[in-house]
Amino acid sequence: MTRLFDNPEDFAASALSGFCAANRGRVVQVPHGAVRARPGAAGKVALLVGGGSGHYPAFLGYVGPGMADAAVAGDVFASPSTSAVAGVARAANRGGGVILGFGNYAGDVLNFGAAAERLQAEGIDARILAVTDDVASSAPDQRHKRRGVAGDLLVFKIAGAAAEAGLDIDAVEAVAQRANAASVSFGVAFDGCTLPGQPAPLFTVEKGNVALGLGIHGEPGIRTEKLPSAAKMADVLLTPLLAERPAGHAGRVAVVLNGLGCTKYEELFVLWHHLSARLEAEGLTPVDPEVGEFVTSLDMAGCSLSLMWLDDELEAFWRAPADAPAFRKGQVAPAAEGEEFAPMPAGATPQQIPQGAPESQKGGVCIAALMATLSGALAEAEEMLGQIDALAGDGDHGQGMARGSKAAAAAADEAARAGAGAATVLGLAGDAWADRAGGTSGALWGVALRAWGAALTNDKAICSATVAAGAQAALDAIVRLGGAQPGDKTLVDALVPFVETLRSEVAGGARLKQAWERAASRATDAAEATAQLRPKLGRARPLAERSLGHPDAGATSLALCARVVGAQIGDI
Amino acid sequence: MTRLFDNPEDFAASALSGFCAANRGRVVQVPHGAVRARPGAAGKVALLVGGGSGHYPAFLGYVGPGMADAAVAGDVFASPSTSAVAGVARAANRGGGVILGFGNYAGDVLNFGAAAERLQAEGIDARILAVTDDVASSAPDQRHKRRGVAGDLLVFKIAGAAAEAGLDIDAVEAVAQRANAASVSFGVAFDGCTLPGQPAPLFTVEKGNVALGLGIHGEPGIRTEKLPSAAKMADVLLTPLLAERPAGHAGRVAVVLNGLGCTKYEELFVLWHHLSARLEAEGLTPVDPEVGEFVTSLDMAGCSLSLMWLDDELEAFWRAPADAPAFRKGQVAPAAEGEEFAPMPAGATPQQIPQGAPESQKGGVCIAALMATLSGALAEAEEMLGQIDALAGDGDHGQGMARGSKAAAAAADEAARAGAGAATVLGLAGDAWADRAGGTSGALWGVALRAWGAALTNDKAICSATVAAGAQAALDAIVRLGGAQPGDKTLVDALVPFVETLRSEVAGGARLKQAWERAASRATDAAEATAQLRPKLGRARPLAERSLGHPDAGATSLALCARVVGAQIGDI
Repeated sequence: MTRLFDNPEDFAASALSGFCAANRGRVVQVPHGAVRARPGAAGKVALLVGGGSGHYPAFLGYVGPGMADAAVAGDVFASPSTSAVAGVARAANRGGGVILGFGNYAGDVLNFGAAAERLQAEGIDARILAVTDDVASSAPDQRHKRRGVAGDLLVFKIAGAAAEAGLDIDAVEAVAQRANAASVSFGVAFDGCTLPGQPAPLFTVEKGNVALGLGIHGEPGIRTEKLPSAAKMADVLLTPLLAERPAGHAGRVAVVLNGLGCTKYEELFVLWHHLSARLEAEGLTPVDPEVGEFVTSLDMAGCSLSLMWLDDELEAFWRAPADAPAFRKGQVAPAAEGEEFAPMPAGATPQQIPQGAPESQKGGVCIAALMATLSGALAEAEEMLGQIDALAGDGDHGQGMARGSKAAAAAADEAARAGAGAATVLGLAGDAWADRAGGTSGALWGVALRAWGAALTNDKAICSATVAAGAQAALDAIVRLGGAQPGDKTLVDALVPFVETLRSEVAGGARLKQAWERAASRATDAAEATAQLRPKLGRARPLAERSLGHPDAGATSLALCARVVGAQIGDI
Repeated sequence: MTRLFDNPEDFAASALSGFCAANRGRVVQVPHGAVRARPGAAGKVALLVGGGSGHYPAFLGYVGPGMADAAVAGDVFASPSTSAVAGVARAANRGGGVILGFGNYAGDVLNFGAAAERLQAEGIDARILAVTDDVASSAPDQRHKRRGVAGDLLVFKIAGAAAEAGLDIDAVEAVAQRANAASVSFGVAFDGCTLPGQPAPLFTVEKGNVALGLGIHGEPGIRTEKLPSAAKMADVLLTPLLAERPAGHAGRVAVVLNGLGCTKYEELFVLWHHLSARLEAEGLTPVDPEVGEFVTSLDMAGCSLSLMWLDDELEAFWRAPADAPAFRKGQVAPAAEGEEFAPMPAGATPQQIPQGAPESQKGGVCIAALMATLSGALAEAEEMLGQIDALAGDGDHGQGMARGSKAAAAAADEAARAGAGAATVLGLAGDAWADRAGGTSGALWGVALRAWGAALTNDKAICSATVAAGAQAALDAIVRLGGAQPGDKTLVDALVPFVETLRSEVAGGARLKQAWERAASRATDAAEATAQLRPKLGRARPLAERSLGHPDAGATSLALCARVVGAQIGDI
């Protein structure tokens, strides 16, 4: 279990400063992350990697020449916020664009995706690179749904070497995506890990058993078996990977045998003793195999095997020199005495509030007023929403919604007072919501409001048609970034009928208030109906069982917001 | 707990081959260890490091340019045998002599010490380097009694850099000893570790508590406290080290914050976040601090802080480049395409059996006959001795004595048939005993018989005086290499009165048989009296308690052997 901490909320932040202090001269701390002390050449493509904390050496330990230019760290097992990702990416950008690399988890997909859109809006060419190597999490034809595990090391190493070699961002992205497509991992768990300050493990595996394909955060696995000998374990790990050997592949493979935290080095070497023989028997040649701890889960017991099916270019990049605090290979050319990195000021890029036309300013004032009402209603509902969320998650949904809506109301009020138009007011409200609310729902609300605002204008009055179009844009953004589908027991289940109803009513000539109220009541019915659904998005099965018969907190809060706004919305 | 293994007895050997397979091109496997794939320059001083397995990256992970030339690995938490150490040292020797580095534990002191003597007898200049950094294990004025923990990394790094710099063996030994004298460590444990195949941990720490100064094999600590915050833990670790700051020291320190296995990286970084501030407040400047896992204890939970008080030479060697699988620093000059290491054949140096004079050959035949009798008696006593040993140790004493005496009898018989003199027969019997018996008692019996044999000759008949002198030489060798004193509840408690009586009786003109039988009966009384004693030599306290009221197995078997020999010894 995790024993060394102060206030558990400060764990990830203290670990970040401790890491930077221990690696002075190699990395420089920036808000929510670290960048190389000596930046890459001007114009070089920058590789930013990240995700939740608790996986060291992923991701901070990968920052250095030949690997990543920067890493962003969220709280333990929690995605960094959109603004955290965007902020570290701005610090890492050398003018050649930024690749945002992360493991394929809902919160990360969301925040790295939203950050990429925000950076692109600022003129920074940002691309996302979601690692999807865990064969246990989806079938080969559903590759995009696979989780990212120790394949992170394989894919980031290739991307980092390609960027170091001076390839442009299209070429770096292309080879990194090819590396991801060529990478497969299979993991086993012997026991769970304990979050700082928690009395019990996040999950457990019955003693003497091994859970096959269990995710590094306790996501459901394939099945549980009696613990086999090391020799048999080599087969357990290798067999599912061999099944995905590309037809006619020559057999040269990059290999990572990864310990998750409490499965120690000698055990991994005993396993490698068997694996190296098995690989040879299968006609596979391990190229620079790595045996150790590369992507951990705090003190989780277990290990994973990752293979990357090499071609000549991938092999060259895999073998290229690298010099990061936790991953070194070959000889990196000594850094010329040069430019030391000057860390960014804590703030993100300064926001200038553009003036809106008088008619649009009126709309901005209305939006600010609606946000204030929403904030009040969500503060009242905080405890109720928290109780619903506690059945299926960590119970912080009410808190996040209250925090987010409060920040959004303040930002909207400030923007409206400054004379912003409706589009600007709603967009800034969305940014503020995402940055303060935290968590997946906060990020989703942020991108939704931002997309909704973009459908409005700053030069005309708000009209029913643009409001309905904005609702559709918000839904599209949530589905695009969140990856949730109707039936996944998320706010999407309430948002889809809301948007459909709002659009059809408006198209049918209904007044906005009437259309909105009908949409809100459809959303309410749909939210209640989520009680029949089981959650997806990689949540652990025990949570899924517990939440059966209870509505989804995200859908419930969305319906609540729809009703509150409907009751107050002016008639257009 | 340790979960990945096959036959637990094979764990360390499989881990060794797995390590070598994973680091092909960097290391070459030799019997019981590994050497650099590219050996150091001819004439370079070689650094051999080692000890029990289960401490990776100690010791195999330290093999590489700028660090160790070779590492020898015993079974889990068990010293490598004398012949294993000597064999790997022969493979590592480049003609400049060999430094044998190890942590200060009874079994290692014994086997590395005996190996050094064996190598010196072969003309290889071998020096021992016992690391004694654990301030919790003895007072500053008893420094030589301190255990070796993560200070291993500090001291071996200095010795490796000094050897790489081309210093001769006297200079390397001197700076390494100075590095050891300047190194202090303090460790804490949160929970124990489980040996491969064992159902329960080797020891435990009550949940929510921390054991201060507990040894990495469960040796007794100072006291147990409630688990403090990370900030307070920084003080707990640092305070005992500050107490030993040399007067007037400038404050530049090499620092190692070491995790023992299940205390993970982010926790160590949180701790370092506080420690780096505390060090600064104390006017100390950490030079190239290392935060991670460097000397582990399987999956033990805990950590340790090590400081080395630097002077200019120590700082230069600490900062010098190194390139080992588990420890890299700076840029090691790329190896010139050169000589690849050719591993030694499995056997040690070939033994040629010198012919003895006819009178001495007679003595050799008698010794071989006595060894055969001893072997029979110890085979009978195997179970009884095992039961006594199980009260204070791992219960393998009877097995070891039976195995050792059987091998000694065979070697003595072979040597006697080949016409060896008494000195050679007894010496070879001793070597065979040590190599096959394993464990501390096996190594002690080996050095004792070898020393006894050296007191005899190959050209004259055996006489009472040389036998008595040999007995004294055997006792001296055991005390010198084993470090046990009378009262420590070891075979020394029976051997001391045996030798005293034998010598005084012989000096008083008694016939050998009579003198020996009196000595044997004194040894028997003394062995029984060990029931009143509590064991020392770093055994864990619970074992000490269990063994109270029971005699020591080593003293009991020694007395038994004395009686058996006395009953058969010829009258001289």
